[in-house]
Amino acid sequence: MADDYQVQSNGGSSDLNSKPLLELYVKASAIDPRRIGADLFCQEFWMELYALYEIGVARVEVKTVNVNSEAFKKNFLGAQPPIMVEEEKGATYTDNREIEGRIFHLAKEFNVPLFEKDPSVEKRIENLYRNFKLFLRSKTENQKVPTPLEDMSAQTRVHYNRVVEQLTGIDQLLADRNSRYLLGNSMTEYDCELMPRLHHIRIIGQSLLSFDIPHNLTHLWNYVLTAYRTAAFIESCPADQDIIRHYKEQLNLFSNQRETLQTPTKTHTIPERVLCDIRNRGLAPDVKVQ
Amino acid sequence: MADDYQVQSNGGSSDLNSKPLLELYVKASAIDPRRIGADLFCQEFWMELYALYEIGVARVEVKTVNVNSEAFKKNFLGAQPPIMVEEEKGATYTDNREIEGRIFHLAKEFNVPLFEKDPSVEKRIENLYRNFKLFLRSKTENQKVPTPLEDMSAQTRVHYNRVVEQLTGIDQLLADRNSRYLLGNSMTEYDCELMPRLHHIRIIGQSLLSFDIPHNLTHLWNYVLTAYRTAAFIESCPADQDIIRHYKEQLNLFSNQRETLQTPTKTHTIPERVLCDIRNRGLAPDVKVQ
Repeated sequence: MADDYQVQSNGGSSDLNSKPLLELYVKASAIDPRRIGADLFCQEFWMELYALYEIGVARVEVKTVNVNSEAFKKNFLGAQPPIMVEEEKGATYTDNREIEGRIFHLAKEFNVPLFEKDPSVEKRIENLYRNFKLFLRSKTENQKVPTPLEDMSAQTRVHYNRVVEQLTGIDQLLADRNSRYLLGNSMTEYDCELMPRLHHIRIIGQSLLSFDIPHNLTHLWNYVLTAYRTAAFIESCPADQDIIRHYKEQLNLFSNQRETLQTPTKTHTIPERVLCDIRNRGLAPDVKVQ
Repeated sequence: MADDYQVQSNGGSSDLNSKPLLELYVKASAIDPRRIGADLFCQEFWMELYALYEIGVARVEVKTVNVNSEAFKKNFLGAQPPIMVEEEKGATYTDNREIEGRIFHLAKEFNVPLFEKDPSVEKRIENLYRNFKLFLRSKTENQKVPTPLEDMSAQTRVHYNRVVEQLTGIDQLLADRNSRYLLGNSMTEYDCELMPRLHHIRIIGQSLLSFDIPHNLTHLWNYVLTAYRTAAFIESCPADQDIIRHYKEQLNLFSNQRETLQTPTKTHTIPERVLCDIRNRGLAPDVKVQ
């Protein structure tokens, strides 16, 4: 079995018996099964688990699985990643509701504010990714290669406008709150949901849509920068090539092997001009004006 | 798009505008894409939605989708069934947490006791299916054709004993409560979870393991009979052949084409001897002693 999984252990060697060991099975990349794939739920739970690991509440092991391998199919009989296993309790959580339930209880037990509720934040972020997917599908419908952003149909423009409107709304929310994460100075489930989706929007926007998050949304870009400086996000983030491949497959777009042959890279920088704006406004305390 | 889906509508023609229309996309059978497949989460949500439909709270349309079709992939870009769409709200729920959240709110709004909590019931049913899968994997490990139940290794026997022990526990719970469903006289989410799993245990037990739910567990069998008389279960239940095919695929077991060629059947009867016990004890009010 061991050979089928790539293990990344976040567990220390001390206190081995006092902390629960949570194993998270995440979907492998279609390019290289040793790399993590672009499944958003897998990254979301990985970030939440990382938050528990960081403050010493749990040991975490992430295992990358090839869902088409016979070993995986036999072992989990039809269940799909993300799957979480807690061996000492004899528990296998194969459902997002169960996985979140277990993380929720651990967070509650140790007073980690990972699941604080905020309906206004929820409202603001809930349809962003759906609308982005509608925009993506519409713009790539009859397109063989990426075309300029201006070349879009009236229908595509409706979706495009909606995405920009929502991104602007989130930028405004972040401006009003003036905090590092959505709810304050520590990461919550809302960030674990939004950060990976914003990153996908960015990577897929650039590679397939000639689209970028508008550069004037300084607070939103500062939030993206925060993601790129958050260990939970960085650790769990797939390579650009794996993200692009994931969407190309779904859209049935021609894959020119570029992603397959390239050395995997991760875009964790933001445009220079935006970085200047962030510096000038003194938004990120650790980004100093030169 | 319409051609890719098999639609089963539960919506009436009156009150079209006053009730929300919920569309549930469920995984198709691998044998025949027009038939529903054996995905447990799909059946669970279908049963919950049926409960809302039955009392007139929502209109429900179930669409069977071939997840490998280009149309499906393009339309949902990587999301997997169950997927729920509520067009008038512009909402697509691709995550079990979101789907349940929406059904939960509707149930709450209309005072449907679908999500009543009962930790003791939860505890009693939670690991049954996991343990059954361990038993199934263990017993079929080196087996080409089903072997008698007695021919099992010591390791397999551990899993077998655990399954029987849990089934006995649920039988006991049902005997103590003396109610039609787990919590009382109306169906709750616990039944939507347990009924399909018990049915899979029965169908797969018989076809691959020479195993049956012990016949002395009269209350449990009576509960299975209740499932077979519950519209929400019957409507959403896949054919035996589709259930068997699903597990054979995961276990990498030889498929002798029998399931593929057979006319689909649904086992919704229980053993005659058990039915007599139920009658003699007067357990099911509608099963009369002849």
